[in-house]
Amino acid sequence: MHKISTYIKLNKLHVFIMLLTFMLFADMTKAQKATWIWYPGDYEVWLSNRMQNRRTERGAFFPPFWKLDSHYVLVDFHKDFTLANPETVELAVEGQYNVKLDGKALAGYPKNIHVPAGRHRLSLKVYNQAAAPAIFVKGQQLVSDTSWLVTYEDKEWIDESGKTSDVSATKYVNAGNWNFDSADKLPSAFRLPTEEHNPEKIERKEHSILVDFGKETFGYAKLIGLKGKGNIKFCYGESKEEALSLTNCELLDSVYIDQLQKADHTMEGSRAFRYINVLFDDHVSADDVSMLYEYSPVEQRGSFKCSDELINKIWDVSAYTLHLNTREFFIDGIKRDRWIWSGDAYQSYLMNYYLYFDSPTVTRTLYALRGKDPVTSHINTIMDYTFYWFMGIYDYYQYTGDKSFIKQMYPRMQSLMSYCLQRRDKNGLMEGLPGDWVFIDWADKLSKKGEVSFEQLLLCRSLETMALCANIMDDKMGNDQYQKLSADLKSKIFSLYWNSDEHAFVHSLVDGKQSDNVTRYTNMFSIFFNYLNPGQQQEIKKYVLLNDNIQKITTPYMRFYELEALCAMGEQSYVLKEMKDYWGGMLNLGAKSFWEEYNPAKTGTDRYAMYGRPFGKSLCHAWGASPIYLLGKYYLGVKPTAPGYQQYIIEPKLGGLQWMEGSVPTADGDIKVSCSTKQIKVSSNTGIGLLRFISTSKPVCKEGEVIAKGNGSYELSIQKQKQYTINYSAKK
Amino acid sequence: MHKISTYIKLNKLHVFIMLLTFMLFADMTKAQKATWIWYPGDYEVWLSNRMQNRRTERGAFFPPFWKLDSHYVLVDFHKDFTLANPETVELAVEGQYNVKLDGKALAGYPKNIHVPAGRHRLSLKVYNQAAAPAIFVKGQQLVSDTSWLVTYEDKEWIDESGKTSDVSATKYVNAGNWNFDSADKLPSAFRLPTEEHNPEKIERKEHSILVDFGKETFGYAKLIGLKGKGNIKFCYGESKEEALSLTNCELLDSVYIDQLQKADHTMEGSRAFRYINVLFDDHVSADDVSMLYEYSPVEQRGSFKCSDELINKIWDVSAYTLHLNTREFFIDGIKRDRWIWSGDAYQSYLMNYYLYFDSPTVTRTLYALRGKDPVTSHINTIMDYTFYWFMGIYDYYQYTGDKSFIKQMYPRMQSLMSYCLQRRDKNGLMEGLPGDWVFIDWADKLSKKGEVSFEQLLLCRSLETMALCANIMDDKMGNDQYQKLSADLKSKIFSLYWNSDEHAFVHSLVDGKQSDNVTRYTNMFSIFFNYLNPGQQQEIKKYVLLNDNIQKITTPYMRFYELEALCAMGEQSYVLKEMKDYWGGMLNLGAKSFWEEYNPAKTGTDRYAMYGRPFGKSLCHAWGASPIYLLGKYYLGVKPTAPGYQQYIIEPKLGGLQWMEGSVPTADGDIKVSCSTKQIKVSSNTGIGLLRFISTSKPVCKEGEVIAKGNGSYELSIQKQKQYTINYSAKK
Repeated sequence: MHKISTYIKLNKLHVFIMLLTFMLFADMTKAQKATWIWYPGDYEVWLSNRMQNRRTERGAFFPPFWKLDSHYVLVDFHKDFTLANPETVELAVEGQYNVKLDGKALAGYPKNIHVPAGRHRLSLKVYNQAAAPAIFVKGQQLVSDTSWLVTYEDKEWIDESGKTSDVSATKYVNAGNWNFDSADKLPSAFRLPTEEHNPEKIERKEHSILVDFGKETFGYAKLIGLKGKGNIKFCYGESKEEALSLTNCELLDSVYIDQLQKADHTMEGSRAFRYINVLFDDHVSADDVSMLYEYSPVEQRGSFKCSDELINKIWDVSAYTLHLNTREFFIDGIKRDRWIWSGDAYQSYLMNYYLYFDSPTVTRTLYALRGKDPVTSHINTIMDYTFYWFMGIYDYYQYTGDKSFIKQMYPRMQSLMSYCLQRRDKNGLMEGLPGDWVFIDWADKLSKKGEVSFEQLLLCRSLETMALCANIMDDKMGNDQYQKLSADLKSKIFSLYWNSDEHAFVHSLVDGKQSDNVTRYTNMFSIFFNYLNPGQQQEIKKYVLLNDNIQKITTPYMRFYELEALCAMGEQSYVLKEMKDYWGGMLNLGAKSFWEEYNPAKTGTDRYAMYGRPFGKSLCHAWGASPIYLLGKYYLGVKPTAPGYQQYIIEPKLGGLQWMEGSVPTADGDIKVSCSTKQIKVSSNTGIGLLRFISTSKPVCKEGEVIAKGNGSYELSIQKQKQYTINYSAKK
Repeated sequence: MHKISTYIKLNKLHVFIMLLTFMLFADMTKAQKATWIWYPGDYEVWLSNRMQNRRTERGAFFPPFWKLDSHYVLVDFHKDFTLANPETVELAVEGQYNVKLDGKALAGYPKNIHVPAGRHRLSLKVYNQAAAPAIFVKGQQLVSDTSWLVTYEDKEWIDESGKTSDVSATKYVNAGNWNFDSADKLPSAFRLPTEEHNPEKIERKEHSILVDFGKETFGYAKLIGLKGKGNIKFCYGESKEEALSLTNCELLDSVYIDQLQKADHTMEGSRAFRYINVLFDDHVSADDVSMLYEYSPVEQRGSFKCSDELINKIWDVSAYTLHLNTREFFIDGIKRDRWIWSGDAYQSYLMNYYLYFDSPTVTRTLYALRGKDPVTSHINTIMDYTFYWFMGIYDYYQYTGDKSFIKQMYPRMQSLMSYCLQRRDKNGLMEGLPGDWVFIDWADKLSKKGEVSFEQLLLCRSLETMALCANIMDDKMGNDQYQKLSADLKSKIFSLYWNSDEHAFVHSLVDGKQSDNVTRYTNMFSIFFNYLNPGQQQEIKKYVLLNDNIQKITTPYMRFYELEALCAMGEQSYVLKEMKDYWGGMLNLGAKSFWEEYNPAKTGTDRYAMYGRPFGKSLCHAWGASPIYLLGKYYLGVKPTAPGYQQYIIEPKLGGLQWMEGSVPTADGDIKVSCSTKQIKVSSNTGIGLLRFISTSKPVCKEGEVIAKGNGSYELSIQKQKQYTINYSAKK
């Protein structure tokens, strides 16, 4: 802006020309932030390879069993721009590179280049096999950012005469970035931050030290004042029993040292634990044990407090559980897999919208899960997990309104959907083919045979996502095609799986016949997918969700959806009790984070067993943190009704609480709600909101007009940056 | 074998059981060679990325303009085997890895493991982002070799109960290898060997040294006794003029030194040159200049000598030209691109069969060119180059009979062909789409518009290759489909492009109409593709090949095929003269290797210009070496008639020479031919041969029965490892 004001002294024509230039290439006049850029998704894929290859099991490396992709090793970056003034531009590059200004290559590997005023094209082409090619460009006017175009195949050949090729078919996309905003912040050098934590309790024996950090945690074990010659073993435990079991602890490290002088030693590999039992050889000793706690620096913007202390505790432990599992990506659990599982991550996205609203962790995870073409398998090899990936994009768009991400991802969505559609059977349904894992849930005797209704339901939702994104892409043909496919499939789901005797969808078709099995999955999803009429909803509620004869769910994973379905039907009071029972049950057992699976019927160390191993179960699993989502979306009652909270609704439901208050983050600011049986206060920094509530008395609000909708239902329009206080009386 | 004899002392049943065991797992009893193995094609793709990213142009890095692929970063290797005796097995791995014996993981990264006697499965799973995951396993009995199975996606998940997944759909393929036969010979550390060469001439000036190595060469410039502080520039020249042109030499390096004591300095980058002009800053000097000559250690097994010294010189310079361009892969030329171009490489394969018979360089090059799925462009972006890739596989199979390679490559052949077939137009023909480069040849005003007949002809041959390979793969449906496609296309080529007034195929269809343009390309290829009847052949010979009104070919690239077509029609005498004119023409100009393009009409330094640059032309281009192929295949007359020289023909044609003698390598040994106007001597170490020749007198052969076929034509059957001497008189 300063620059423009100096021109006011010049004659009018000059000013006009200058302004015109600024308008045409307006981006050059704005204050901009230089950031490292790369081919979109490539850094994410590369980083996920690093992260997913850190799993160990009792000291043995344990990599994933699906295909890992790679970044493009050769990437061309360019930008067309106009400089008002000549300038020197700083370049930093990860890889071997060339620099071309207006098509002319500069010799060597320049770190600074001079760019004259006027219109130019700057190109950098980077080769890097070991890490994603990335560049950082910083001038006063020209900087690297997502407006740069990139391609993995520029097709810029020249013929015999020196004539250059037609590049009309070269596919350029906008560069990807994150937050590496200085030349020395190399993307490939990225590490999560750490801080040193000391144990709460220490038990020293002759050849061992057992430490207790007081809660589930994650990081690098550190020995203080280590000396001697010999081996040291680290038995990590999420439970004390596990740390004390040298033969069965899931995580076991060892290191050999030979040092006369005392020195500290930090282990290379990060691990999950509450306890560490450090076992020393005869001639080795250490003074103390501590740890470097490693964490993602995401900001906790969402909050929830209420009149029920147990619910508050559940919310806090959920937030801690999600934070431990929010790392470079959303992972399943910190002890065992530490992989990116699409079904698990899908729930973390949803919780994220009510805790951090950290979009980069969502998009990074979606990129990592999708990988690259060709598609050779379902995501994580699991059919349902492919569909959750699509659904994750649907929700991401709804919460953030971020069209640029959809644009980058749409081709990969198309090829993955085309993989799915090719695998339909003669009935147009998807059945597990050899190599496919039909997962659904960890549950006893859950049939995966035939055409499982749950898979068709998720496919249907995925097709709806495709139609939505086709529309954003102005892909009319795609939109029509996907709409037709989803509509046809939806009607097929009703005609093939709905059983009026059972008042529910059946679990599967086997050899063309309905199985006599009714499970909760399809039924509960169909509720919050809004596929049912009110009568069907009530049937399912009665005959499935609230029916103890239908096999119970024992994973927090599927409890998430079961309780969501009940909340969507207004059963907040019931769900509150369930939450207190189920999550409260884990807390009663001393849980400091929520588990992969919880079955109240199990006792003793049996609770820790899974996968046929005594400590196989993860005691800190992202999918255990769903109360964050349920309380934010269905109690505070905040949710977007148009992409990116351009429009949203606040529909507080106390569900038996005396009061609650909290904050829901959005891309533009927070939505704050506090609600008791007598008063609702709301304020928002984003979009156009609508408060909807039930009152038995006539509500009073000074700041806006409360409109009665009949049956004790009221609505109030919420404007940005205004505070509303409504006095009312809640239905008892 | 020693082991078996000890068992003879045991009772019969025991012996029987032992023998049975040996029979079932026979590979364990043979003496085997441990070798580094990887996912087939992955090391090749990785190595080609390194090689193709070594090009520079006047000091600026100049990478390819097509997509570069990557190895799979996570690969699972396994082998099922039975050990007669327990043994300790040595492991070496490139990457982070785990080791599982019979499914049980061993902790850490073991370098040796103990394997008990009996039946086992050994698995290693390796993660490596920077280079292809590779393993080396060496015991007395168990070794890593191509019998190991590999996959990039094992899908070995376990469910809640500890049950492992169904891996029936996991795609295992045999491992790839080369010649890294010891643990310390790491594939990623591979470098071509070098040896120090001194210049033939040195011209010293005050601030420069100009050296002449006496011939075209390749390697690393080395300064002897370098000292001082300042810059040194290296102007490389294939010609003296180029080395002396600081402003226009194509290859230009510079280095800054600061050293008080004299020391030698070898440049990092390898370059092509005959001359180097080294320019020193004021305070820098060196005593001498030498080079480290870098070369591929392929063995020159083929030979050719004859009564014409110019032809001998042409053969020798061709062999040297091909050797310089035979590096990690077959490249186009050593000065400029140093890339793998499919059209260029295709000719190198053919020459290779008559010079080295080095199959690994062929398969490596085919792997590198094909890269990985998805196919996003033609190979090297050039439509014709995609087809040469298929044709290269056809020939490779014909010369080597190597079915295992076809099996590894077939899926990539299918996906590339499917890419092509999808790009056909409404007439079922392939036309250049945006981004496609229709190359054909470097030639003035060569039209690429419309549906070019040459491209359809190559597509037809490619479809025949697909049918052949489908047959090898027992893919009956594929075989039928590709046969039908090729037959249909062939008949379309005749109906659409043959013009009886022109007695030839026309160049193209534009807007559905035949262009009035006749070029040599389609016509000459149709001859050695054997698509014509004898009448059509003669028409083309007269109206195209021997017709000066048809635009002449100026590249050795297309001279290759033009002369091949004439040879195929028995025009060896004419071709001999042409060879002496054309290649002899280059020798007359002082060529020490053959050029990218040669137009006798050009004079002075104009000869060195191309691409609009004064020294743009490569003076050492693989496609210049075709006399090796022509002389081996059409003068010595040796060619396979069944895959892998199981059957072959020897049909010597002197073409006006008084005598010739030479050797043609095969996978099993050499075929030797010497022939004069009076005597033919042949011997062979492979397959079933047939000598065919013309004689005006009755031939005499003591070693076999010469059978008259009429018209002065005779045949003699050749048996392995016998020598034949036939006395005859050749037609004058």
